[in-house]
Amino acid sequence: MRMYDIIEKKRNGKELTKEEIKFFIDGYTEDAIPDYQISALLMAIYFQDMTDDERANLTTAMVESGDQIDLSAIEGIKVDKHSTGGVGDTTTLILAPLVASVGVPLAKMSGRGLGHTGGTIDKLESVPGFHVEISNDEFIKLVNKNKVAVIGQSGNLTPADKKLYSLRDVTATVNSIPLIASSIMSKKIASGADGIVLDVKTGAGAFMKDLTDAKELAHAMVSIGNQVGRNTMAVISDMSQPLGFAIGNALEVKEAIDTLQGKGPDDLTELCLTLGSQMVVVAKKAESLKDAKELLEANLKNGEAFNKFKQFLESQGGDASVADNPELLPQAAYQIELPAKTSGKVSTIIADELGTAAMMLGAGRATKDSEIDLSVGIVLHKKIGDSVTEGEALLTIHSNRETVEEVKEKLYQSIAITQGNVNAPSLIYDTITE
Amino acid sequence: MRMYDIIEKKRNGKELTKEEIKFFIDGYTEDAIPDYQISALLMAIYFQDMTDDERANLTTAMVESGDQIDLSAIEGIKVDKHSTGGVGDTTTLILAPLVASVGVPLAKMSGRGLGHTGGTIDKLESVPGFHVEISNDEFIKLVNKNKVAVIGQSGNLTPADKKLYSLRDVTATVNSIPLIASSIMSKKIASGADGIVLDVKTGAGAFMKDLTDAKELAHAMVSIGNQVGRNTMAVISDMSQPLGFAIGNALEVKEAIDTLQGKGPDDLTELCLTLGSQMVVVAKKAESLKDAKELLEANLKNGEAFNKFKQFLESQGGDASVADNPELLPQAAYQIELPAKTSGKVSTIIADELGTAAMMLGAGRATKDSEIDLSVGIVLHKKIGDSVTEGEALLTIHSNRETVEEVKEKLYQSIAITQGNVNAPSLIYDTITE
Repeated sequence: MRMYDIIEKKRNGKELTKEEIKFFIDGYTEDAIPDYQISALLMAIYFQDMTDDERANLTTAMVESGDQIDLSAIEGIKVDKHSTGGVGDTTTLILAPLVASVGVPLAKMSGRGLGHTGGTIDKLESVPGFHVEISNDEFIKLVNKNKVAVIGQSGNLTPADKKLYSLRDVTATVNSIPLIASSIMSKKIASGADGIVLDVKTGAGAFMKDLTDAKELAHAMVSIGNQVGRNTMAVISDMSQPLGFAIGNALEVKEAIDTLQGKGPDDLTELCLTLGSQMVVVAKKAESLKDAKELLEANLKNGEAFNKFKQFLESQGGDASVADNPELLPQAAYQIELPAKTSGKVSTIIADELGTAAMMLGAGRATKDSEIDLSVGIVLHKKIGDSVTEGEALLTIHSNRETVEEVKEKLYQSIAITQGNVNAPSLIYDTITE
Repeated sequence: MRMYDIIEKKRNGKELTKEEIKFFIDGYTEDAIPDYQISALLMAIYFQDMTDDERANLTTAMVESGDQIDLSAIEGIKVDKHSTGGVGDTTTLILAPLVASVGVPLAKMSGRGLGHTGGTIDKLESVPGFHVEISNDEFIKLVNKNKVAVIGQSGNLTPADKKLYSLRDVTATVNSIPLIASSIMSKKIASGADGIVLDVKTGAGAFMKDLTDAKELAHAMVSIGNQVGRNTMAVISDMSQPLGFAIGNALEVKEAIDTLQGKGPDDLTELCLTLGSQMVVVAKKAESLKDAKELLEANLKNGEAFNKFKQFLESQGGDASVADNPELLPQAAYQIELPAKTSGKVSTIIADELGTAAMMLGAGRATKDSEIDLSVGIVLHKKIGDSVTEGEALLTIHSNRETVEEVKEKLYQSIAITQGNVNAPSLIYDTITE
């Protein structure tokens, strides 16, 4: 088998076999095939696309390029959730205890990551004492006992995907549905999940700006998952503005606590119930999405979800009293309001610009070695469609610096107020269950 | 300027500016841009094509990536000829003295090259004493005096093209009209020609198997030439069978001598007159192709072309008596006929397979360091459409080995005889003059 022939075949729009895909993925992982042949192939894939079989075979080859987590010692159907990324997305903190409270095992491997705010682990570490340095054995024991535990990422998962992604990033081949879908799915599958629920974001603040593209990506991932024997569902949700009100680490933990007590923002609550219902059905803990949603709603009301969160914090060394007294979370020194300059209706809140503002405050990591300030961030008081009067606070900046003129300037540029009528955007655009 | 943006722009089907093209060609030549970005761009060009402006700018950038030969000390309009490659193509040996005999200056830089037979220099070196090791000054003096001289390639011409070609060769991006056209034209332009005549081969033995592709390539090259101020014309000629009868080095020199005396093969003579007429018009030594052809035909008849050939040989140290006594050329020890196994009409002669057979005899170079046997090769006695009776010689193998069973086997596989009617293929499919 020669790499040249594989490039030419794909260039000519022919379907690559499973063996051909495995050949180039293994060869690239082992540095036996040079970057310049792979980048030519990636560009050919960009133009010629991949069939369902090719996508599944690519995903499997990437999964097999490295370690695979074995979760078989955990009872039940292990479900994982993935979001394509957004701003102020606190869903994991809520979903984990919520679905665990109805018996869905949630064995979460999580990273710290780069971005506007920290990753799930960073956020959880704003709870005093909470830590993810637990052994694999303890992790499995905890999931079997409590149905939920979080551990840091370990092992050499999908090295082929890491190499491919770095190359795509510098050769203008990131934006290809089969390549995006196989990249995401390979990581989830290598992490050992039996079932996968996907939250595909769309809108100005999302990677997929366009709804059509978001739907195509969601269908592609669901198709890959089901082809390789992992029950997969997806939700397409709005990211034209931030989700919920909070952007920041401790601020999002507080919002998660509110939501688990049934008093969270409507959009965040609704999205968690929608994603959670799919997770419950995938884990076969309910027959229909409707039944699943009822179970989850009940546990938000009766305190089961909230109690599960406290149990989860405690079991990993965290101070569970934080859940009852969120003021114990790290607090920023200054709370600075951003007053509206005019009256009207909020028409635009550019999500990723708000994310950048949070990052300017210190909430996120620009490089692997950056320090995160867990206390800082932004809390919105108005969202798109809300009325506001001149001088009323649009949001509160939580900062450890007294002067935040730059941040204010950025925020004013990212929020528009109009005199006309504005409707709030839809939250859920589509749900894909097969 | 960032290479990433250039790849993305071309990927999206936008036209690259002159500055962007110069940026990536210079960057690649200087190793400042890595192979993997260039190969992604090449694949994007494969799919998105290039506009006329882009093609001209790419050609110019490649010309400017290295040395450019200055022929300004030679009087008149210097014309160069290029063939896209075929088997048994002896045209250069004939055209050089033929057009020089009507006053067109021919300052030929030539290489040895790899292939079925040697390059023009190898062929000429089968004339005892002939050599191309002359100084640049002497070269220019000779062209001004005799209108024709040949010198070996020197200088660092189009290094960008060399790097790009090596990369295209391993990334399935050779077969792209804008990339082929700019590669060929950049080399000709860097060699200093004022005008260029192109022989684009088509058919089973050619790089461009398909007539439509050959026409597209010819138009692309003529357009580039004229855009960058070099008057350019093209002929599209048949390579479904070898041109003329001879394949080999000394054998082709003998065929060239015959043709210059007006007794060469019809197809070779006709193609030389067609290409030669374009060269004469480009050099402004005649107003029309018809006038030019008459001049050339006259010089074949009256001995002027033949005398020019002898003068050319002598002026570079060659024994001109070879022209009158071709038996002085290197002769192979064995002449072995290949008898037809059946009677009928010749329907197929696969040109490149005959080329490979000549190479097996030692006529060509597989690697840069291979030794060439100037005496060996093949002389056809029949061409497509000719009648043959069982036992009659289809061709003669000129070999220095007595046993050539492998070669015979290959030749039998490459020549078909049918009982039906067969027409000889057309020789000239098209001429492109603007």
